[in-house]
Order: sequence, then structure tokens, then C-alpha cells
Amino acid sequence: MVWKLVDNIWEELYQYLIDDNFILVTDENVYNIYKEEVENLLKGREEIHIIPSGETSKNLKELSNIYTLLIQRNIDREGRILCLGGGVVGDLAGFAAATYKRGIEYIQIPTTLLSQVDSSIGGKTGIDFSGHKNIIGSFHFPLITLICTSFIHTLPEKEIACGLGEIIKYGLIEDYDFFKYIERNMNKVYSRDMEVLSFIIEKSIKIKLSMVEKDKLDAGIRQNLNFGHTIGHSIESFFGYTKYNHGEAVILGMMYESNIAYERNLIDKEYYNEIIKVLSPLVEQTILSNDEINILLEYMKNDKKNKDGKISFILPIGRGKVNIFYDVEEELIIKAILNNYKKE
Amino acid sequence: MVWKLVDNIWEELYQYLIDDNFILVTDENVYNIYKEEVENLLKGREEIHIIPSGETSKNLKELSNIYTLLIQRNIDREGRILCLGGGVVGDLAGFAAATYKRGIEYIQIPTTLLSQVDSSIGGKTGIDFSGHKNIIGSFHFPLITLICTSFIHTLPEKEIACGLGEIIKYGLIEDYDFFKYIERNMNKVYSRDMEVLSFIIEKSIKIKLSMVEKDKLDAGIRQNLNFGHTIGHSIESFFGYTKYNHGEAVILGMMYESNIAYERNLIDKEYYNEIIKVLSPLVEQTILSNDEINILLEYMKNDKKNKDGKISFILPIGRGKVNIFYDVEEELIIKAILNNYKKE
Repeated sequence: MVWKLVDNIWEELYQYLIDDNFILVTDENVYNIYKEEVENLLKGREEIHIIPSGETSKNLKELSNIYTLLIQRNIDREGRILCLGGGVVGDLAGFAAATYKRGIEYIQIPTTLLSQVDSSIGGKTGIDFSGHKNIIGSFHFPLITLICTSFIHTLPEKEIACGLGEIIKYGLIEDYDFFKYIERNMNKVYSRDMEVLSFIIEKSIKIKLSMVEKDKLDAGIRQNLNFGHTIGHSIESFFGYTKYNHGEAVILGMMYESNIAYERNLIDKEYYNEIIKVLSPLVEQTILSNDEINILLEYMKNDKKNKDGKISFILPIGRGKVNIFYDVEEELIIKAILNNYKKE
Repeated sequence: MVWKLVDNIWEELYQYLIDDNFILVTDENVYNIYKEEVENLLKGREEIHIIPSGETSKNLKELSNIYTLLIQRNIDREGRILCLGGGVVGDLAGFAAATYKRGIEYIQIPTTLLSQVDSSIGGKTGIDFSGHKNIIGSFHFPLITLICTSFIHTLPEKEIACGLGEIIKYGLIEDYDFFKYIERNMNKVYSRDMEVLSFIIEKSIKIKLSMVEKDKLDAGIRQNLNFGHTIGHSIESFFGYTKYNHGEAVILGMMYESNIAYERNLIDKEYYNEIIKVLSPLVEQTILSNDEINILLEYMKNDKKNKDGKISFILPIGRGKVNIFYDVEEELIIKAILNNYKKE
């Protein structure tokens, strides 16, 4: 898995354009902001495909549109896809690369804080299907992931918060000192302090990569990365990928799952409060009814991480430590989701 | 890559049913013949999915239907798919297995001579897209391929011919003695002589596997397996996968491509005549117009095996030997397709 921090992404990208044997996939938001740079890079060639922004684009129809462009442009097995955008673009176009002509190269150019520290690293690609997140996909590692922090300047605040969610997760699952560093430097992240951002991004990628490299096919330690994701994915599915983006859903998921850990005496009150204090300002909780929570439970029961029909949870068991559990009682899950975290 | 010859497939299959964590995919033809055995095996469970027979089922819609059943049946990452049928079932359901939850196990139970010696061996899975054969797919090796020759008893004669096409191909690309053995035993194949069939199937699988194992990702020697496929695939696409099945198209492809090899002085007249004499009775040639041949050429130009925009051809260069060529002149291709092989 190759990645690098680059200063000027447009200069850097130039060397990755191989004749006419590539396409570039991006989304409307990114294209609107970087239209000039992209057109400058492509010099009028028609290799570009722009998808609607948002998680709902991770579907078979958009995948088909990318296949169609690849065929129209005669892209062969030596060709490649440049994925310029957030996690949606990377997952979708990466999966197209994984399956077109049984696999061609692709390059990740993540434009959000979240995708820079998470989805662009680790080789997971995929789409959603009938409300189930990432249920269709492949492991397919990019040729390289190019990280350029200057994209962060144009990111809305909501996107910063949701990148922070995954970053805090790395601290909570693997490195308590890193968690405390983020807590102390939260304001500098929001003011786009490039030094702090670069440090945090690099540290996050290294934590993720060390886990991925130990477990390429996601059968062991890599599962720890799913902290916050069991409930988080069910929230995304429940709201049809509109109300909460992935990072926000994971933040809520980590709050709920930390609550479960606290109720099970896996972590002490002090650590639990630290976690909630950092996470709860980042996203607005929606109080759900019991009926609605039952629908979340249905989604959790269909999570691809489950084994023998039991819902899997990654729960904190101490500062900077987590473990996997298959025996969480439904009442604890419901109680955690019903809890109002603003009060704490 | 694990495979085995089995006597009683229904008894054998029993041990591969893991609780309710599997589905079985088959097609209408196979189901109509083996309904009783299949229902006996499944004991009333609803894990079965039956696709319409024929190449046109290798599409996104049928793939979606399999995904839907996998989700409905709550199949998890430890689950598996049993693929009972010819190449269409194996390619389609194998691709579903390759991409559902980023890859689950599948078992190939090929029911045609063609799929027993070809598509069930080698880990290629995939579907067709906008007229392009196998243009979307993955490498994903089955847990095991179970070969049962008694399926051959219920095969129509047309299906025997098309299996023979690929079998003869193995002789022509790798083992001239095997080619001569097939030539001598053609009648015994048609009369379903089990001893001859078992020998031929085993030999074919061994030749294919030795090439696959040297070249898992299809970048080198495995390309030799594509003899007959450059023109063959274009014929399938041109006729919309209806008039000729895969094996028949490959037989025509091998005749045309041998003609090109002869015209280029790669093989002598005597060997060329041997090839045509064996192949031409197996399938009815359609004489195409120049305009129609131009459409074939367009398909060939979009073949996933091409490099730098040049059409790749595997051509015979001697008895039981082939090589790859990127410089075949269009006139030679057209001349070969226009030629009437009945006259020779």
C-alpha cells in the first residue's frame, strides 16, 4: 500500500496520466470547486465522469455509467482510473477499477479529511445495495493514494467534524496519547492549521495501515477499525444516507458503543465521560422511538461483520484499547441509543 | 485450485451444505432435468435461485437478483454459493460470490462438458456488459470444483460439440498427441463413452491448470488459452449470444485464426488441413458480408486482451504450439472470416 503527502496535487497528478488510457471520476461538489484545475489537467480530453455528490451515488446505476465510459474510451487492461473526491468517489470508482476487465489500476486522490484518513487507505472498494452499506465490493489496492492537505481548506465545517470522527477513533482503538493530542488541538483542526492537520493525517494513516498490513483480508485485528460502525452503519441505512454522512454516523456509533462498554463495566466512568465530551459536540443526536430502534437492530443483524447470526461489536476495554464482542444484549443496545448524550 | 472427479454428485454435495448459510444457483434447463435431486438435497429450504438459461443471463439484473437472495437469506461472510450449471451459472454466481460482502466461498458444479473443462477451472468469474463478453469480473477461486461425468448423459449433441471445441483447443495449444487422440476418439465422445470422456476431461483440466498456476492473473502464458477467442468473442457479441454458444464461437474462431496462421506461413498446409478437418464438422459457419465483418472488427478492438490499442491474437506456430501476436493485418482477418471452410 503506497501513499504520499503532496504539496501541489495538480503538478503531481500530471505524471499519472497515461496517454488516453485513463478516465477521471469525480463528483459535482469537487468539480464545481476545482473545475479549472481539472480541465487544465485534462486539456479538453473527454475522460471525465462526474457523479452526483453523496452516498446515494454508490449504486449499480452509477457503477454502470462508469463501465460505459470505460468501454466508450476503449480503456484496456493497462489503463487506470483517477478517483478525485471523497469516500463515495473512491469506493465507487475503485470498485469499477476492481471489476472492469477483471481489475485495472486506480489512483486515490481523496479530497475530504475523512477519505484521506480512512477510505482511501486499505484497499476496500464497493457500493451499497438495497439499503445495505458496502455490501457489494472487492479488496483492490490503489496504485497509490495521494494526500494533499490543501483540499481541506475548501471543506465545509460539517466535513471536518466527520473526518475528526474517524481520527478520534484511531486514538480510541490504538493510541490514547493520540486521542489526548486531538482533544487538545481540536480548535487548530477547525482553523485548518496545516501543521496540526498534516501530523494528524499522517498519524491516522499509519495506525490504519499497520492494522491493514497485519490483516489484508479483514479477518482479524482489522476488525477493530469497525469501532462505532455496527450502530453507525445502521444509522446511515435507517436515514437513507441523507441525514447523517458516514463520519457523523460513526461518531454517534462510537458514543452509543462506548455507552454499552460502560454499562458492561469494560471502561470506567472517567474514560467514558472523556469520550462523550469529545464526541458529542461534533454531531447532533436524533432521539429515536423504540420502533425506530427496532429497525436499526434489523440492519445490524444484516451487518457483513456478523458471525453465526450474532451481531459483532467492537467495544472499548480501556484507554486506547478495544476488543470484539458477539454477545451484546439487545436491551443494552436499545438503552444506549435511547440515552440523551447532551445531558452528560 | 482444488478439483475432483466424483461419481455421485448428490451424495458428494451433501457435505458442502453449511446450515442455512448458503444458496444454490442453477438455471432452468438444469433444474428441469434434476428437479428431484435438487429438492431432495435442499429438503424444502428456500435457498435456490433459478436463472433463465443462456448467455444473456450474465447481466447486472441477474447479478442483482442473486445479491437480493443473499441478503434475504442473511448469508454472512462465512456463507457460500453452490453454482450448479454450465459456464453462465458459474461465471455469474461466481462473480456474485466474489463481490458479496467483498468475497464469500463458492463451489463449482459444472454440468456441461464445456464448463467442466474450461470455465469452472481457473477462478475467472464475470458478466457481460453492453454486448461485451466478460468485460466485468473478478479473479476468485472456487473452494472446490466438483466434476461429475454423468451430467454429460443428459447433454444435447450441440453441447458436446461445443465442449469438444475447448478440448481440441488444449491439444492445439499444448499437446499435439492429445489432439490426435481426440481426433481418433471423436465418435466415442458422441456416444458418451465414459472412459474416453473421463480421460479427456482430466487431461484438459490438467493442461488448463498447469497454465493457470503459472500465471494466476492472466498476464503471460495463460493468454495462450485465448486461442480462437479473439474472433470467437466477437462472433458471440455480433450475434447477441443467441445464434452461437461460446464453444461454437470458439470453434469458428480457431478455424479463422488457423487460417490467419497459415496465410502468415506460421503453420504448414498439412497441419492447417488437419485442424480444419476436425473443427469444421462441429459447427455451421455463417458467411458474413464485409459490413458485418467490420462490426466484428470493432468488437475485437475492444477486447480486454488488447494492448496499446492493438488487437491480440493467439496463433498456431506449429503442432501443439501457439504464440501471441499483436500485428495481424486487418485484411488477413477479413479474408479468414470470408473463407468458406466447407470447401476445403
